Amino acid sequence: MKVPLHPEELEETQPGGVIALVPPCSLAKEATFGFGYVSQGGSKHENEPPWGTPCTQLLIFVATPGCDGFPSLYSKEDYKLSVSEGSLLLSADAVWGALRGLETFSQLIGRDENGTYYINKTEIVDFPRFPHRGLLLDTSRHYLPLRAILETLDVMAYNKFNVFHWHIVDDPSFPYESFTFPELSKQALGCAEKGLEGLYGVIWPCLAPSSLSCVCYDPGAPGLLTPCYLGKEPSGTYGPINPILNSTYKFVTSLFQEVSTVFPDFFLHLGGDEVDFTCWKSNPKISAFMKEMGFGEDYKKLESFYIQRLLDIVSSLGKGYIVWQEVFDNGVKVRPDTIIHVWKENSTPYMEEMANVTKAGYRALLSAPWYLNHISYGQDWMAAYKVEPLEFKGSPEQKERVIGGEACMWGEYVDVTNLTPRLWPRAGAVAERLWSDATVRDLQDAYVRLAEFRCQLLRRGVRAQPLYVGYCESEFNGF
Amino acid sequence: MKVPLHPEELEETQPGGVIALVPPCSLAKEATFGFGYVSQGGSKHENEPPWGTPCTQLLIFVATPGCDGFPSLYSKEDYKLSVSEGSLLLSADAVWGALRGLETFSQLIGRDENGTYYINKTEIVDFPRFPHRGLLLDTSRHYLPLRAILETLDVMAYNKFNVFHWHIVDDPSFPYESFTFPELSKQALGCAEKGLEGLYGVIWPCLAPSSLSCVCYDPGAPGLLTPCYLGKEPSGTYGPINPILNSTYKFVTSLFQEVSTVFPDFFLHLGGDEVDFTCWKSNPKISAFMKEMGFGEDYKKLESFYIQRLLDIVSSLGKGYIVWQEVFDNGVKVRPDTIIHVWKENSTPYMEEMANVTKAGYRALLSAPWYLNHISYGQDWMAAYKVEPLEFKGSPEQKERVIGGEACMWGEYVDVTNLTPRLWPRAGAVAERLWSDATVRDLQDAYVRLAEFRCQLLRRGVRAQPLYVGYCESEFNGF
Repeated sequence: MKVPLHPEELEETQPGGVIALVPPCSLAKEATFGFGYVSQGGSKHENEPPWGTPCTQLLIFVATPGCDGFPSLYSKEDYKLSVSEGSLLLSADAVWGALRGLETFSQLIGRDENGTYYINKTEIVDFPRFPHRGLLLDTSRHYLPLRAILETLDVMAYNKFNVFHWHIVDDPSFPYESFTFPELSKQALGCAEKGLEGLYGVIWPCLAPSSLSCVCYDPGAPGLLTPCYLGKEPSGTYGPINPILNSTYKFVTSLFQEVSTVFPDFFLHLGGDEVDFTCWKSNPKISAFMKEMGFGEDYKKLESFYIQRLLDIVSSLGKGYIVWQEVFDNGVKVRPDTIIHVWKENSTPYMEEMANVTKAGYRALLSAPWYLNHISYGQDWMAAYKVEPLEFKGSPEQKERVIGGEACMWGEYVDVTNLTPRLWPRAGAVAERLWSDATVRDLQDAYVRLAEFRCQLLRRGVRAQPLYVGYCESEFNGF
Repeated sequence: MKVPLHPEELEETQPGGVIALVPPCSLAKEATFGFGYVSQGGSKHENEPPWGTPCTQLLIFVATPGCDGFPSLYSKEDYKLSVSEGSLLLSADAVWGALRGLETFSQLIGRDENGTYYINKTEIVDFPRFPHRGLLLDTSRHYLPLRAILETLDVMAYNKFNVFHWHIVDDPSFPYESFTFPELSKQALGCAEKGLEGLYGVIWPCLAPSSLSCVCYDPGAPGLLTPCYLGKEPSGTYGPINPILNSTYKFVTSLFQEVSTVFPDFFLHLGGDEVDFTCWKSNPKISAFMKEMGFGEDYKKLESFYIQRLLDIVSSLGKGYIVWQEVFDNGVKVRPDTIIHVWKENSTPYMEEMANVTKAGYRALLSAPWYLNHISYGQDWMAAYKVEPLEFKGSPEQKERVIGGEACMWGEYVDVTNLTPRLWPRAGAVAERLWSDATVRDLQDAYVRLAEFRCQLLRRGVRAQPLYVGYCESEFNGF
């Protein structure tokens, strides 16, 4: 049985708009407001303008309407949605659940052959399987304009993703503009002043404290980077950050103090991927320090020493941290509540790594099978969809340590020209895997849902690419 | 030495505009017109507005200025471009060469740090290596709006492609609107009337006379399609076109008469790819015909019989034809001037097929390594670029029978949302391979050219995707 809806009002049901209409903090315990009217009675004369029909409001009940500021791993996202003739009811424990429910509501709205909006009668009890459902976006390798990032955030919400992992800086550029250390992005800003719009592509000292692996130029902060040697003389080039100086840790502390303020989320992703030790090996002062510390020739120990101090600094700022799996693989001592981000696809099979990480008592976050920047011909969303994050040998306690996963869109081959079609609807496969029950995994069903969802994205003006041969009733018209 | 140019005028040098300014038929033997002014004397005061400077015109000499209507395989595209202080000269045998030269000219224009347009002194003698440099675009599997097709044509011209292979119809849809047989696209038109804009996605009888391979529904032209049998009774479904009835050939003749008029080019691509014989095998009348003709159980002979008559019809209309390699592989007798389109990548190694085709005396057209709809992670343009079309064992006469190649963008996974970034600049690698000398094949040089060309495409408003990490002075701003 279909419940017809008031078309004029429903033009407003784009989630972007909805969220703007429903600021979390203003939701009363039994909030009612003018959204999603449906006609009472249900029978209408064909020529009667629909806006003349009396309407019923969508009722939203939020059990704990308090505004808890930012969502966290422990935010409640479950909701119930009940649609019947004359009654539209959305109830949730917290505002976060209400937002997810509003998104579902907006996606349930259809339009019949006469152009009348309707919603089917339905009873939905819905909640996420994993609390961390993220998308990594990389702005270090190509410039992405603000509007592309904002669009990504919108489409993430349509997909019920709840964590935006912004990979701002990396070896190729440092587009984070620090007010404590303005010189860090000075060169990049120079580009912006020339009207280049971008903060990227500059040969930039690798000051991202977690990125130790590039060949660097001295940023004019003497002593921060390791001077490389050629034989017995400094070669004039610089290597990774210098881990043997106190001044390095003072710098890192100040930078992270700022970053903690700019990004109020609890977790910082500290990276910690592989380091090229060549420059460290060439430097006699580093060698002397290695001897003094009893590290022998094992530069991984020096890396661990640096990472350990970095983690201590972040802990002292009251922040939690996520690190790439190498930090775990290299045996760096980390706090028990550290989240280990599993990203390597082949070196150790990633499911084995998930087992190892959770067996060691750490929480695990899965990305290895979800590098969506990797593309191949055909319906590659299927491989992403088929992943089962808990398909490893381990106790129920281990399984509970898997907090979720992240789809990754690294930027080597992606900028504003191709980001959206490459990301959507493919990332939707990951979103469903992380939200829905493990038993929801029929590929043919998923195809139908995803193809229909993609048409919905087109109607919302999102340049989402086709899954296969076919068409949507409204094709993309933003060419 | 750089020659400064008049910026106001040069805002007009986008090739689209240029081509509009230079209609081929109006070019006089020594045409001069107001395009591409450069300052005489060459020395300018910095504060003097450049448009106050006296200018020299670009002179275009066309040796044979006659308008020969449409370009053909024998059109002359060579040109010479000479740029020095006070003199800009473009000379060509034919208007086609002048157009190529104007494109080159427009791409040579740079802009210095003061914003002044300039062009370097240069002497260019340029001509294509192969006469057929094509791009196949598929509008049967997804709807492409007209503006997407027109943009593709523009960018083809920027890349010196000269053949647009429009794959209009195929199994999934028949968006060619025939005035002789309006019922062919009637269902599709029905969609258009509903405001769906598209002529696609309809379960459509496979009437593309060269496409015999789909399961079909009767289009209301009784007898045209083969009735399939289930045991001794017609099953109610229809198979490929019915090759045993004279009415079929009458229909095909009328359709091709129309198509020949709508598309005045000399060549028609007749397809001729693989057929599923199941329906033909089930039909007792077809079996009887096979017996009568002495075809035994070899349905390839029936296919050949049909294709042979199709080719005769096209020949009788004064048209030349291109066919997929299966027609050659299956031993169908074709005219000696037939062009065989080599597209299979693996069954026979494509270079072996090129050798076989040319050894048999036919002209060959290469697409096998250039299916750009096939995507993979990384810089896959390099594989397309490294192809050497004449790298097969054969006599010089055989090599001369290779008329060129076509990049193909089949539409299974491509529509307006992702066409442009998927096609450009990747297709540029094929364009250069087909235009430039065989010795031009250094990958690093090509990378630099292609990356810079891609920046030029962005400046022209084309959503071309990045080759790798980096940036352009003007990023894409058409989001």
